[in-house]
Amino acid sequence: MTATLGASRLATPPKPQFPRLEHPLGAAELEQALRSFSGSYYVQHPFHQLMYEGKLSQRQFQGWVANRLAYQRVVPRKDAAILSNCPDPAVRREWLQRIVDHDGTAAGTGGIELWIRLGVSLGVPREEMEDERHVLPAVRLIAESYVTFCRTKPWVEAVASSLTELFAPKIHQQRIEAFPRYYPWIPDAALDYFRSRLVQAPRDVHHGLAIVQEHCRTVETQQRAFEALAFKLDMLWAMIDSIHNAYSE
Amino acid sequence: MTATLGASRLATPPKPQFPRLEHPLGAAELEQALRSFSGSYYVQHPFHQLMYEGKLSQRQFQGWVANRLAYQRVVPRKDAAILSNCPDPAVRREWLQRIVDHDGTAAGTGGIELWIRLGVSLGVPREEMEDERHVLPAVRLIAESYVTFCRTKPWVEAVASSLTELFAPKIHQQRIEAFPRYYPWIPDAALDYFRSRLVQAPRDVHHGLAIVQEHCRTVETQQRAFEALAFKLDMLWAMIDSIHNAYSE
Repeated sequence: MTATLGASRLATPPKPQFPRLEHPLGAAELEQALRSFSGSYYVQHPFHQLMYEGKLSQRQFQGWVANRLAYQRVVPRKDAAILSNCPDPAVRREWLQRIVDHDGTAAGTGGIELWIRLGVSLGVPREEMEDERHVLPAVRLIAESYVTFCRTKPWVEAVASSLTELFAPKIHQQRIEAFPRYYPWIPDAALDYFRSRLVQAPRDVHHGLAIVQEHCRTVETQQRAFEALAFKLDMLWAMIDSIHNAYSE
Repeated sequence: MTATLGASRLATPPKPQFPRLEHPLGAAELEQALRSFSGSYYVQHPFHQLMYEGKLSQRQFQGWVANRLAYQRVVPRKDAAILSNCPDPAVRREWLQRIVDHDGTAAGTGGIELWIRLGVSLGVPREEMEDERHVLPAVRLIAESYVTFCRTKPWVEAVASSLTELFAPKIHQQRIEAFPRYYPWIPDAALDYFRSRLVQAPRDVHHGLAIVQEHCRTVETQQRAFEALAFKLDMLWAMIDSIHNAYSE
């Protein structure tokens, strides 16, 4: 599934192939078609390839972790935007857990806090993580575009955009394996965020996928689900690309 | 604090008096000024006066309970809109509880379900509550305007709009007292929703008030808090007025 990253397209993400639908896909086919977008996931981006090959400098790691916090921080806001557009209390009850995962249940808990601790582990002082002084304007706008997407699109499309989680377990596992192997200066506790996501992401994607399978049963709605996933893939790619370009060595 | 409802203004709500600020109010003065808007709370509306005087027919009660469900159902969506605009995880963690209160933690729990049961207690079949066949278009649009307000205004103003909760304990207590006294056909279990709100509303208003006191420390922001509260008072009044007019006898 690894896309070839020839020089000809180093600057633009590998485009997913949209299935041409003449009739609606069944639930299993729909899942397969969504999974076929994996070649556009930002795990394929050169910055991540450098990361998993042990070739990132500490400065690059620090630029990455400080910038990615802007994304972590918009995640509960985009999830709340989905709740705000969703009329089904049963869906809301389950979706709410994502906000709790990121915000935690008390100060000092939750995914955002774990990401800040990851930054501290990588050598960025907590204060410099929290005040976002290292966050590139491009990254901030790109992250905010995700909230806007979820606020303004029908909630099922916003849910479909979350399905990049289909590809996330691999990226978390790669980090858990590569960090101790190639970057001995990174303490083990730095991996807590990725360990927590290994549990949360499969549960989230199961719920998100079930929603899309239930609500997207026509050619038109399935097409919109593909477009939503493509938007999110572009968004993630744009974010890592901005970080990569700002911290190239 | 009861406003005089002369015939001259039966059709428009009693206007709150906006304080003229030359300098910002202290926290306690701000609370007092917000509380001074109580004369515009929809407890003052003729429909509620009839309710507490034992003068509503069962049909009027049924029209009220079926229509008010549209409002109950937008409440978690407006709270999610506030979360979506709020950058502070500590505020989000506490505000999230409001969504849980309304949606519950499982099917058959939470404030929306209690309201549906209230409707059933008042003689509206569950199916007719749930499919909203009795909801007036005006009530639907008025309720949706609350979500729009919370989605589009700065989150602190949206929080200020929630401060009609300052006046809510009285309305819940009045219902708990008036229903058994004047309407013996209403079963005791119908009061469960109001009993739950007697616990939840004071906790909510404490949190909401603290946010407004912390974030509104200038003349301009305090003025906007008053305007937000006035919007919400208008919204609630418009809702009960629509119900009253549709079910007048």
